Amino acid sequence: MKNPLGIKDIARMLQISVSTVSRAFRDTHDVNPETRKKVLALAKKLNFKPNKNASALASGSTKNIGVIIPFITNYYFSMVISGIQEEAYERDYNVILYVTNDNVAREQTLLENLSTSSLDGLLISISSDSSTNAHFEQLMAKGMPIVFFDRVPRDIHASKVVQDDFAGAMQATEYLIQQGYRRIAHIAGPESLQFTQQRLSGYLRALEQHDMPVDKQLIVFSGFSQAQGAADTQQLLALPDPPDAIFAANDRKAVGAILTIKQRGLWVGRDIGVIGFTNDPIAVVVEPNLSTIEEPAMEIGRRSCALLIRHIKNRDFEVQDIILPGKLIQRDSTRRTSG
Amino acid sequence: MKNPLGIKDIARMLQISVSTVSRAFRDTHDVNPETRKKVLALAKKLNFKPNKNASALASGSTKNIGVIIPFITNYYFSMVISGIQEEAYERDYNVILYVTNDNVAREQTLLENLSTSSLDGLLISISSDSSTNAHFEQLMAKGMPIVFFDRVPRDIHASKVVQDDFAGAMQATEYLIQQGYRRIAHIAGPESLQFTQQRLSGYLRALEQHDMPVDKQLIVFSGFSQAQGAADTQQLLALPDPPDAIFAANDRKAVGAILTIKQRGLWVGRDIGVIGFTNDPIAVVVEPNLSTIEEPAMEIGRRSCALLIRHIKNRDFEVQDIILPGKLIQRDSTRRTSG
Repeated sequence: MKNPLGIKDIARMLQISVSTVSRAFRDTHDVNPETRKKVLALAKKLNFKPNKNASALASGSTKNIGVIIPFITNYYFSMVISGIQEEAYERDYNVILYVTNDNVAREQTLLENLSTSSLDGLLISISSDSSTNAHFEQLMAKGMPIVFFDRVPRDIHASKVVQDDFAGAMQATEYLIQQGYRRIAHIAGPESLQFTQQRLSGYLRALEQHDMPVDKQLIVFSGFSQAQGAADTQQLLALPDPPDAIFAANDRKAVGAILTIKQRGLWVGRDIGVIGFTNDPIAVVVEPNLSTIEEPAMEIGRRSCALLIRHIKNRDFEVQDIILPGKLIQRDSTRRTSG
Repeated sequence: MKNPLGIKDIARMLQISVSTVSRAFRDTHDVNPETRKKVLALAKKLNFKPNKNASALASGSTKNIGVIIPFITNYYFSMVISGIQEEAYERDYNVILYVTNDNVAREQTLLENLSTSSLDGLLISISSDSSTNAHFEQLMAKGMPIVFFDRVPRDIHASKVVQDDFAGAMQATEYLIQQGYRRIAHIAGPESLQFTQQRLSGYLRALEQHDMPVDKQLIVFSGFSQAQGAADTQQLLALPDPPDAIFAANDRKAVGAILTIKQRGLWVGRDIGVIGFTNDPIAVVVEPNLSTIEEPAMEIGRRSCALLIRHIKNRDFEVQDIILPGKLIQRDSTRRTSG
């Protein structure tokens, strides 16, 4: 959309050069503060907004941040975007949203077609089936500032913001052990994702620290849906020696587990304990209410965005790994005395 | 981010003018097709992407659509954005996301500070406490194409895309009547919102068509949260003559109603029927599973975006009101024979 009044009109009215007006809007240091004040006052009076495309061309800055995520219809990601959005709003950046549908082909197409000149930087959470870093490295080689969050690639020299999956998984598993459960299963996400590995490691470490044996039959990898949580649980319940507790990689899988256990006529908590990971609102809708590790999703969004802006403003800013702690939330699904 | 190679380099290599290269990228009609082919082939070989800001300045088009929504951490809105995103991706538009936190002051600040020159058009769902249209009308007067969706202002001459709230509410209420419920309450959203009024009208029309009396005590207005649904239900159950069914304005309120009814030792379905509106994933987690009117959220996003692009491409395109039907989904919360 074009502005009805242009920068030329302002220059004419104030009898100064167009270049001075343009520099006044960009707040460069070589403009007389008095002149700048006059330009901004007149612009305000005329309700004139400087054309962002023009300032972008002149300053090399677009004030646009691109966000690439697998899904948006997912509580965790919508909270992260909410955090990114809040930080960007306060810092006067726009958020341009790209959704990969958790598909690496679309992720690659998106990155290849990205008009890098319209973006100051990128926040990326990779798709589950992402197996190469080439499309990210190509952008980084061109100098695009990138911060990865939550689902981050392995072996890439870039800033990352994640929750502490290892510590959270260890805490969840230890909590089950403290509650008296002895045969603890883990229904995990896709095996290739780094956070799946981190959560698995936390689970294994907790067993090890309590001298509990590892039974590979009790570890099931699949997807993130409620249906996949239900299927994993059916598989576990069909074992000759089924588990007495389940640590699920996320709350939706845990809900699938709870509903399956109840359908079998078993009591969640008393017969089989269940703990999730996220603290999705469904955790307090399912019965019994689900114990879980709360992820700092909003905070991950805020911190990722703030870190990206540091990289944008200072191209020499060192790569950082930020790891945020989760929080154990105890509810009825892990109470041995209730049903 | 700046491109390492510029349009000038391409002009030099092909020995043509910079202006010709620029017009080739913009695909204007005054460029020799052969020349255009050469420019694009060389650009591809060099992995050069024309600067969108420069094309935007030259063509007056930015390929950016702004989306203004009250929330993102809400199943309905995240589905709508998903639909907008899909349509925009296919049509090669970027989606810039603005969140008002359902607050009219932030909505106004956002619109006032919007750099209209960086956007081709806007998709808007208004905040609950929006009481004036002035900030929208100001933008429309400047020629900004706008399409409103879901939460739309009253009395504004602009295109709108909504679900059929009236018909959906009528269908929900009639279904309760068919199931044998006789004293049907309605727990509604904020009274000022158009869709609250539409759903209320549908409820009232269904009662009227079945010669059932309207009892104003059975109509409660509040917010959209599970907690507000629970509070509304407590108020209804405290009546001397409480309802035997509740039609909730959304699924989260309906879940609050179900949990409250169960806490009172009453059976959902047998004693008090409950129906919602949305078809949020929580509908199949709460027990008994929630009957509801499914909203075409993804479709609303797609259609709004497609309609906005029509308005962007043809400034004379007539204002349209698109009303999409919902769908009754029958589950156990309205079954009189189950608990």
